[in-house]
Amino acid sequence: MNYSFSNKVSNLKPSAIREIMKYTALPEIIPFAAGNPAPEAFPAKQAEEITHKILSENPIAALQYNITEGYTPLRETIKKRLASQGCFNPDIDDVITTSGGQQGNELSCKVFLNEGDTLICESPSFIGSLNSFRSYGVHLVGIELEDDGIDLNKLEAALKTNKNTKIIYVIPNFQNPTGKCMSFEKRKGVYALAKKYDVVILEDNPYGEIRFEGENIPSIKTLDNDGRVIYVGSFSKVIAPGLRVGFVSAPKDIIQKIVVCKQVSDVHTNILAQMLCNSFLNDYDFEAHLLKLREIYRHKCKLMLSEIDKNFSKKLITTRPQGGLFIWATLPDSCDMMDFCKKAVERKVAVVPGNAFIIDENEKTSCFRMNFSTPTDEQLIKGCEIIGKLSKEMFD
Amino acid sequence: MNYSFSNKVSNLKPSAIREIMKYTALPEIIPFAAGNPAPEAFPAKQAEEITHKILSENPIAALQYNITEGYTPLRETIKKRLASQGCFNPDIDDVITTSGGQQGNELSCKVFLNEGDTLICESPSFIGSLNSFRSYGVHLVGIELEDDGIDLNKLEAALKTNKNTKIIYVIPNFQNPTGKCMSFEKRKGVYALAKKYDVVILEDNPYGEIRFEGENIPSIKTLDNDGRVIYVGSFSKVIAPGLRVGFVSAPKDIIQKIVVCKQVSDVHTNILAQMLCNSFLNDYDFEAHLLKLREIYRHKCKLMLSEIDKNFSKKLITTRPQGGLFIWATLPDSCDMMDFCKKAVERKVAVVPGNAFIIDENEKTSCFRMNFSTPTDEQLIKGCEIIGKLSKEMFD
Repeated sequence: MNYSFSNKVSNLKPSAIREIMKYTALPEIIPFAAGNPAPEAFPAKQAEEITHKILSENPIAALQYNITEGYTPLRETIKKRLASQGCFNPDIDDVITTSGGQQGNELSCKVFLNEGDTLICESPSFIGSLNSFRSYGVHLVGIELEDDGIDLNKLEAALKTNKNTKIIYVIPNFQNPTGKCMSFEKRKGVYALAKKYDVVILEDNPYGEIRFEGENIPSIKTLDNDGRVIYVGSFSKVIAPGLRVGFVSAPKDIIQKIVVCKQVSDVHTNILAQMLCNSFLNDYDFEAHLLKLREIYRHKCKLMLSEIDKNFSKKLITTRPQGGLFIWATLPDSCDMMDFCKKAVERKVAVVPGNAFIIDENEKTSCFRMNFSTPTDEQLIKGCEIIGKLSKEMFD
Repeated sequence: MNYSFSNKVSNLKPSAIREIMKYTALPEIIPFAAGNPAPEAFPAKQAEEITHKILSENPIAALQYNITEGYTPLRETIKKRLASQGCFNPDIDDVITTSGGQQGNELSCKVFLNEGDTLICESPSFIGSLNSFRSYGVHLVGIELEDDGIDLNKLEAALKTNKNTKIIYVIPNFQNPTGKCMSFEKRKGVYALAKKYDVVILEDNPYGEIRFEGENIPSIKTLDNDGRVIYVGSFSKVIAPGLRVGFVSAPKDIIQKIVVCKQVSDVHTNILAQMLCNSFLNDYDFEAHLLKLREIYRHKCKLMLSEIDKNFSKKLITTRPQGGLFIWATLPDSCDMMDFCKKAVERKVAVVPGNAFIIDENEKTSCFRMNFSTPTDEQLIKGCEIIGKLSKEMFD
């Protein structure tokens, strides 16, 4: 049989970076291309204790169907945490748990956008979200990122040009792939523009709690006085990604629509995982866990940056993130980025070519992404040495 | 802010049956309206043993990101089980695990159907699947169900009329909501028509393993010699629904598209739950578990049917299922079904009005659905007594 797939799925083309990415699973490859949280930060022992307790004392609740909105005690816990962070009114109906932050972004898109509607995002931005938006036939417009976040002038120009814009999608904290953090001034600016052009903001914050340097910046959601910000959070980076537990907080009119879409997608999120997260947040010292976790990432990031300083050609510029998992590197303009990445993987270091993260994969970019959470210290040192040597051979 | 939701989501209207359904959570209501598997059938002790073992011995694998296709050993196990049931070639790339069978149906729809394309289904059919198809703006055509399954003449007529049909969606075993089972002759007929009109069959089989009477009938998938059947399975009814683990088996060209859509939806299914299912299937006596489970449902179904025979007006006709969770009742034509259901819930028995399951909710139907897996024996007896009394008052 010859299959006739839907347009939206046919348009999701196999990525040009697949060829490089397929090497990244090989054990001999140094995994700078990954995005996995550091496994030494997983609360494995506590997860065992908690699941033992749940499945001994309350197994039916963990195994039976539950409501689509999510495990109520976890939603209460999320609300309390958001309220303590200044994130708006603590109403339980403003929160739904999702199967990872990814599902929060996907369903927000499904709820608001028709095929052909415009979604404006940072460029570069997270490939998983971009593909999710593409899978609904959405028109994507990417706006350049400055060091302190999205370029507000270009954002306004895009809002003027694209009258059918429904959503501005941003990752204000330690953005994937750049590691950049949006300044509070710019957060206010994005919110003001969203208001002026009457669009919704989709604020994706998977990395906000892994700030290991500098001061916290309030989320855009804290500015939201007319219910236009959808805030997406995740436990993937602060507890464990295999659990697939995230959440969305938004005005309940929006949450109700997301509930309808989630119900027809997966009914509800795995309930044992939701109970596990709730117990770990409440019955253990979660703040101490976060401190430990930040210490791990601070160390890894510092190590990678110092090895970069030691080894890389000065013509290769990188960001210096204060949190998250990623460093963004920019090659000299004249360089063929894809050629550079291929050479790196031939020498057993995998990085992600920058065009994975831009709207038009064929657009020229001279950047690539490096991850510091997955490699061991030894791999960080060795990998930077190899890329450093390559960069010096090519540019110095 | 006034929200402008997408057409596909705006069109998902709050159901006319919501008013009745909201009573069903009340503890004093006898839950004939539910669809929950019997909790006494959950392998709670084994789940505790298995998660203890996984999280003690191999916690990182259970907590880290995994591949979208699913936990490889579970996919191997699923393939072996399908092969032993005659379900086509045992290639690992023909299987993906999903977050429940619901996600399998949803993603199959997303992969094949553009807005406005036609999907033909049984009428009545499972509301969760229907709403999932509606959420993609699909044109639904419902075909009448006879006692041995879909009406093949009407199916062919619909295929002739609706040239843009992409999928025929069927639940051959103990269909939700009717409990009816499609004969092998009809399965062959559906497959032949799919071939003649070159469409895909989406075969949803959540209940196939809870046959408690009669002989197994081979799935449509076993007839598939040209790769047009997408088979959706689930562990919700045979292990536990809270885990949200199901699977799709189809030719790998289709699976690859489903993988792309799943990746942007929830990245992968909760990994601990997948490991749990795999261990329960392999390290325990799963066949003995199934026998126990079938015995529970056989008992409950028999009890409900004998109480129906004892109490109901003879003008109220019901199906007599050989498996699954549901019995379908038909009132006399002259009766106002919604009025009957409202009276039943006033007397503390909730059933699901039949229009929940038909394509056009406003179409007249004189049926309702009763579930026998959730109520206790006492509730089954009491509930049938109440509905019986009501039916005799109204019809005799």
